Amino acid sequence: MPVDRPTARFSLSQEADMTSTNGAATDWAKRDARVVQHPHGNPQDPERLVLVRGKGSTLWDAEGREYIDAHAGAWLTQVGHGREELAKVAAEQMSTLAHFTIMADFANTPTIEFCERLVERAPRNIAKVRLMSSGSEADDEALQLVRLYHHRRGQPQRTKVLVLRGSFHGRTYGGAELAGGRPGIGDVPDNAITLTPPWPYHTELFGGENLTDFCVRELEETIARVGAKNIAAMFGELVMGPAGMIPAPDDYWPRMVSVLKAHGILFVADEVVTGFGRAGAWYSSLDYNLAPDIIVLAKGIASGYMPLGALLLDANVADVLDGAGGGGSYAGHLVAAAVASANIDIIERENPLEASRERGRQFLDELGELINLPVVGDVRGRGLMVGVELVSDKATREPLFGRFPSLRKDIDRFLRTKHGVIVGIHGGTIALTPPLVITAREVSHVVDAVGDALARVNIHTGRID
Amino acid sequence: MPVDRPTARFSLSQEADMTSTNGAATDWAKRDARVVQHPHGNPQDPERLVLVRGKGSTLWDAEGREYIDAHAGAWLTQVGHGREELAKVAAEQMSTLAHFTIMADFANTPTIEFCERLVERAPRNIAKVRLMSSGSEADDEALQLVRLYHHRRGQPQRTKVLVLRGSFHGRTYGGAELAGGRPGIGDVPDNAITLTPPWPYHTELFGGENLTDFCVRELEETIARVGAKNIAAMFGELVMGPAGMIPAPDDYWPRMVSVLKAHGILFVADEVVTGFGRAGAWYSSLDYNLAPDIIVLAKGIASGYMPLGALLLDANVADVLDGAGGGGSYAGHLVAAAVASANIDIIERENPLEASRERGRQFLDELGELINLPVVGDVRGRGLMVGVELVSDKATREPLFGRFPSLRKDIDRFLRTKHGVIVGIHGGTIALTPPLVITAREVSHVVDAVGDALARVNIHTGRID
Repeated sequence: MPVDRPTARFSLSQEADMTSTNGAATDWAKRDARVVQHPHGNPQDPERLVLVRGKGSTLWDAEGREYIDAHAGAWLTQVGHGREELAKVAAEQMSTLAHFTIMADFANTPTIEFCERLVERAPRNIAKVRLMSSGSEADDEALQLVRLYHHRRGQPQRTKVLVLRGSFHGRTYGGAELAGGRPGIGDVPDNAITLTPPWPYHTELFGGENLTDFCVRELEETIARVGAKNIAAMFGELVMGPAGMIPAPDDYWPRMVSVLKAHGILFVADEVVTGFGRAGAWYSSLDYNLAPDIIVLAKGIASGYMPLGALLLDANVADVLDGAGGGGSYAGHLVAAAVASANIDIIERENPLEASRERGRQFLDELGELINLPVVGDVRGRGLMVGVELVSDKATREPLFGRFPSLRKDIDRFLRTKHGVIVGIHGGTIALTPPLVITAREVSHVVDAVGDALARVNIHTGRID
Repeated sequence: MPVDRPTARFSLSQEADMTSTNGAATDWAKRDARVVQHPHGNPQDPERLVLVRGKGSTLWDAEGREYIDAHAGAWLTQVGHGREELAKVAAEQMSTLAHFTIMADFANTPTIEFCERLVERAPRNIAKVRLMSSGSEADDEALQLVRLYHHRRGQPQRTKVLVLRGSFHGRTYGGAELAGGRPGIGDVPDNAITLTPPWPYHTELFGGENLTDFCVRELEETIARVGAKNIAAMFGELVMGPAGMIPAPDDYWPRMVSVLKAHGILFVADEVVTGFGRAGAWYSSLDYNLAPDIIVLAKGIASGYMPLGALLLDANVADVLDGAGGGGSYAGHLVAAAVASANIDIIERENPLEASRERGRQFLDELGELINLPVVGDVRGRGLMVGVELVSDKATREPLFGRFPSLRKDIDRFLRTKHGVIVGIHGGTIALTPPLVITAREVSHVVDAVGDALARVNIHTGRID
């Protein structure tokens, strides 16, 4: 696939000056390696991409190099970088009143207004909001709340939780429990019951049966085996994110949730990734016509301009949980609420939800040609959660990085250095999740870059030729 | 105790206008009750204090009422409310680049500079920083990391954790494990081993023995009983916060930590509350001359202007943990780092650490007279963590609210409505934790208000006369 667009170029403007003022980029990288511990970083590889500025879908590093951001760091800068409007709102609120706890009976006006706006746009069963500081905090709180709900209703034995194999629900101990444990962090209660992920490309998971039929039957059998009276909730990412940007078939969630409701099992829609237009709708719960008992939000909720998470609560669930503990010091942060409200204003004014759907379709159209490459197993997406799943063998669907682990980093580096494109690579999938304001031209550049990298992968050596 | 200062007064300025523009305060309270679920709120009592503005140690509500903030919502607004300087820094950074993940090899300049400044001011063994979004996230991560540390060093059976009875280490499942479980949230691993809190007022805890001698012996006996080879770490609040603002005797932490070190047990100093001048020093670890393996920070780290948490890591611990997972989407937030750096600038320029010590001494001096009141058991503090412990019987030291539960709310309401003073009440203790910039005159107002409330408590009826 030919590349007819400029590769990363050096700029002679502001960014180069910033570099010379603050020290060379290599100095930044060294300073960073000395004091910042990066989660999941490779200590043997001190290479760093030191970012200094962004505008829309464009990023610049400390060397003045320019990039197209197809990552949205990570999957959350819905309205794009460098929004003066949000900065202005933040400054006004910060100089008025930045923070005061909303524990007990403290309240504040920006939080009230923001929660009203969240509820107005949510499925109609949603009545109240619990505010948190992050997706991990919100997922952990949701796990506590679904159990408290049953405990308060006299069913304390409902503690098991259904999850999709490979799903992600945060980084705390609660998240680890939902992931079935994590090596090295000690005891994690064995309460997560895994179900087959609705992953259409991997037909081998469903033994030739229709995916939804298989999954619904598995759910019913699992409930029969474990006993509904022992199950608190099912947690589900409506489009699986870290597992590889995997949208389920349209009938999957409605049929699954209807089984759950019939058994008094709560449904927690983890929309940390899908919410706020990422998957083409305010909430994917609306897109799939669901009425979850709890919707977990973070990431796009303030486009990352402020750390923020939230739980949307069904009216009945909220009633039962009124007065329950939880929360956190930063819950109800006035600046977070004000900025998140302004983020809603931008989304309503500029309609990036529609853009998310359009650019998502463009990605799928243009990436479609890549399916003929030997390493491309699947191209899929919903809104601007787009995935290109890489395989070493199309017949067996074996993951490419299983055979060539270092290729992952090589593709990442090639895209950055040769094409000025920043992507995420999760599991065996290249994830394309730019700001929703990405232009059609930028989408094509990203597609061409990915196409160039993948066309150069030598399936025998695992190198980029 | 006479009150010679004005009670809460109505203002005719900006705030009253805001109220008339946006609706009456009662409307705000109703709207809040409809959509915001307050952790620990009382659903039967829809009373709300709806805050709209702050400046220094002064707050205004939606009715235009003015308050002295002796709470710092909660214990964290070190440099006071309404700092234009922080708002300006936030706006500049937000319009340049607000957020990009620092997972893997992404980095950014404000984060590097801020982490350098954290390390420069820390105990000399501290080498690296892990950034988080909140104290709860940071505590949960610390618990995972101490176990990962031993796991990576070939001692995976080190999973038990020593904690002080009544200590607080966050609201996630990790925090619940450190608290010995929480009712209704399901299985929590039984790995927390509790030690007697260093609470000088409660001499009955130590059976007549010197407090530190008792506690050190208990620690040694506990380690012998459980086996050092099974213990990952001890978590300690250097001044216990939610338990009632309890400073330990000066020799307590140094002697405890030296026992821990001798047994290869990591020491995690939970300085979420004490850090950044709250207890009179940058870090109480420096104040007590400790070299913790991990220091947990949040709250005062950015004076609440941005949600932020951090872990400071000892050089050896950091080496072992390099490349370990964890973190979070908002870790490395550029605005949080820039604002937190500017918060350090203010602290260095205005020296509120010294102010914290001076105003803390003033509180203790002026509150000292209250010890003669029948309901005041103890007055204590370190820096601006000041506690007035209330009892129903001075001989038995029984908690006042144990006998009169509703008095807690009554005292809170009396202080707000009659004196315009906002405090926190935690357990059996009135906590006085204002912004560090509180003036001497404001301190006296708060003391007079608290004195008036407590002098009016009828020990027979549990009412405020």
